[in-house]
Amino acid sequence: MDLKPTKPLSGFIELLPSQQRCFDYCAARMLDVLRRAGFSMLDLPAIERAEVLTDKDNWDEIETQMFLFQKGDTKMGLRYDGTVGLSRYVAGHLNDLVFPFRASQFSKRYRGERAQRGRYREFYQMDMDIMGINSLSTNYDAEIISVISSALDSVSEFIGPNIVLVGSRPFWDALFDYLELDAAQKKAVFVLIDKKDKMGDEDFSEGLKDALNNTGKENVIKSVFTAGYETFANKSEKLGAAIAELTDFMKLLDGMGVKNAKIDLSIARGLAYYTGLVFEFKLINHPELGTAAGGGRYADLAGKFSKTKIIGVGAAIGFSRIFASMLENNQIDLSRFANPVDVAVLVMGNNNVAYASRVVNALRDSGIVAVSYLDTDKKFKNQIEYADKIGARFSMIIGDDEVAKNVVALKNMESGNQETVSVADAIKELNK
Amino acid sequence: MDLKPTKPLSGFIELLPSQQRCFDYCAARMLDVLRRAGFSMLDLPAIERAEVLTDKDNWDEIETQMFLFQKGDTKMGLRYDGTVGLSRYVAGHLNDLVFPFRASQFSKRYRGERAQRGRYREFYQMDMDIMGINSLSTNYDAEIISVISSALDSVSEFIGPNIVLVGSRPFWDALFDYLELDAAQKKAVFVLIDKKDKMGDEDFSEGLKDALNNTGKENVIKSVFTAGYETFANKSEKLGAAIAELTDFMKLLDGMGVKNAKIDLSIARGLAYYTGLVFEFKLINHPELGTAAGGGRYADLAGKFSKTKIIGVGAAIGFSRIFASMLENNQIDLSRFANPVDVAVLVMGNNNVAYASRVVNALRDSGIVAVSYLDTDKKFKNQIEYADKIGARFSMIIGDDEVAKNVVALKNMESGNQETVSVADAIKELNK
Repeated sequence: MDLKPTKPLSGFIELLPSQQRCFDYCAARMLDVLRRAGFSMLDLPAIERAEVLTDKDNWDEIETQMFLFQKGDTKMGLRYDGTVGLSRYVAGHLNDLVFPFRASQFSKRYRGERAQRGRYREFYQMDMDIMGINSLSTNYDAEIISVISSALDSVSEFIGPNIVLVGSRPFWDALFDYLELDAAQKKAVFVLIDKKDKMGDEDFSEGLKDALNNTGKENVIKSVFTAGYETFANKSEKLGAAIAELTDFMKLLDGMGVKNAKIDLSIARGLAYYTGLVFEFKLINHPELGTAAGGGRYADLAGKFSKTKIIGVGAAIGFSRIFASMLENNQIDLSRFANPVDVAVLVMGNNNVAYASRVVNALRDSGIVAVSYLDTDKKFKNQIEYADKIGARFSMIIGDDEVAKNVVALKNMESGNQETVSVADAIKELNK
Repeated sequence: MDLKPTKPLSGFIELLPSQQRCFDYCAARMLDVLRRAGFSMLDLPAIERAEVLTDKDNWDEIETQMFLFQKGDTKMGLRYDGTVGLSRYVAGHLNDLVFPFRASQFSKRYRGERAQRGRYREFYQMDMDIMGINSLSTNYDAEIISVISSALDSVSEFIGPNIVLVGSRPFWDALFDYLELDAAQKKAVFVLIDKKDKMGDEDFSEGLKDALNNTGKENVIKSVFTAGYETFANKSEKLGAAIAELTDFMKLLDGMGVKNAKIDLSIARGLAYYTGLVFEFKLINHPELGTAAGGGRYADLAGKFSKTKIIGVGAAIGFSRIFASMLENNQIDLSRFANPVDVAVLVMGNNNVAYASRVVNALRDSGIVAVSYLDTDKKFKNQIEYADKIGARFSMIIGDDEVAKNVVALKNMESGNQETVSVADAIKELNK
């Protein structure tokens, strides 16, 4: 019989135990930041009705982007982000939740498209959203940025420092109105701005010329990135308001202690549902990872589920994008995650397994990570080799003598020192 | 436009924030027991190649039981248990792992069949497996039972006490051989034994008669449950060995401190890959939940992936089966999970947001759960109502006076006492 493949499907992540410990450690640290900021953790279904996942009905196209299936008459599929389920959940529990409601999700999401280098088909994102009914101060936008900054800082020993770039949808709306662009032009120019960083200046210029039919308006757009946005403050009331909002917001961030923020109007966050300020975090030492986190403000989260207007600000940290990628590329020193075992308990003779197991339970109850080696027919040499291989700090040897005297032999694996002690004293030594 | 449904698909779990906190708390406690027992947490893909999920090729039938989809030429689907991915992973990493290898998984699994009452289509199981190359002492079977027992005990305040019932595949194999059953009879009788608890005695008897063509052998099978298994010890060498293994095993469990175990030969664990001892945990106070955890020994985990023989013992705790079910039926007192917030920070006037945010950061850095209310245009009455609704123990009021004097007003929400203190003193009070 042919053996089946042991590799996971392409685009799927599979870590070794020490990598996984690092991954889990970073997640726990960041989630603790969110918990202290009062975010409620939600764990929503990974499968949603197709009509929840999309408003479109061009199934052939959607099917290439998502994992879809049909059960009975119901089309369903795997979520591609956290927002789609959150909006359904919040709309369905308006009376169970207190608003402004702070929600966080740390969960797997799925993209059905063909796997590309650096793009996962199954990946974790860590979302946070603050949602209000009918109104929500932009102070919460600053709060979200501050919390993400703290979350990324909590693992800076692995990923280094970060910066946050802030953009404004209202600025571009106002500028497009000022330039009297039609709907198609607005969309085309917006897509170009969103891709500007990846395109390079020349392609960007060419794109603008095409989109605006060489009307000269392309030079006005480009001047935002050269002369600066400030020059537009007096061009229209809307432009003045958008610029004031943005500069006030940056002042607030600074006052709050977020010192790593700057304005970058090329931050646009695609054609998604954002309607206000938008932002992206980058890791200074890891430009190759692109956007580490991104989000912004939306004016109507759950319009397709509820007549109640839910306004919010939300963001997602690309957790797998950062950590799975860095772990797979050996960019994190794993030495402190390699050896999680305090003591390997080695048992000489099958009659001593029950005694050894009671000792092991006492060790574990006191918080010690204790792994017992229970193939008692193996030679001492094999057993101590096992203790060494799993990186145990200590080994504990239990044979007939130890059981008879109600003691254990405790060996420091680094120094080689061995002493015979009571279980209570062994626990003291191991907990040092 | 018609509004879309806000309920999740049937068979999918969705918890309210306080329920989710209880669910997560119980998972964390149990996972900590596994961590102290040296299990490495694995987080494997939820999607596997169809050929990994099943050896069958009757796609129409399989499709009714699983969530399957096709991308390009590759058929794939969502895992229905943890073992299928584990076996692939271990076979693919034989040289990266130290054996006996202890692995744990806490992850979502999927069943594509139509949702029934009490059956989820997406659910968590908590798996643990200990795997050896070519050999593995049955002492590890006892270790797994001991660890599951500790894990369930760690949340006994919610689920009450548990018992473990131990069965033996080798006993039935030996008895079937002794009775000279043919392959079809063996299978039919085994299925009946597996379903015995659900069938009732009369149906069980009828079933045996049908399966064994009224040969009288049915009375021998029945006598296992009435006269007892001990009477077979001398019938054949294989029967004697199987019974000796089982009774020695129970003695070991008792010696290890597992006092809640008993033999029950109706425990059979279906037609799965088990080849040795098998076991099931039940919750004494919750018979309606059926099996809380189950597992057993397998002789060849990864035969379809590797020529290396991986022997192991493994078990899965039906985590959602226990906790989602009890939470959905309001069987857990959630009062201690209702109010996770230490302090609500209320800000009077938009000029004071930056100061308040710096205070909030200091609170959170010291471990306090602090939620800021940043709609500063809302009246004090609305703000204090919010503090009350989220169940904050304290509220902290920050207005012009407090900022000018570099202090905060701290109000105990239960006693109503309010005092003006420095931020440092507020932190002391909140950390009491």
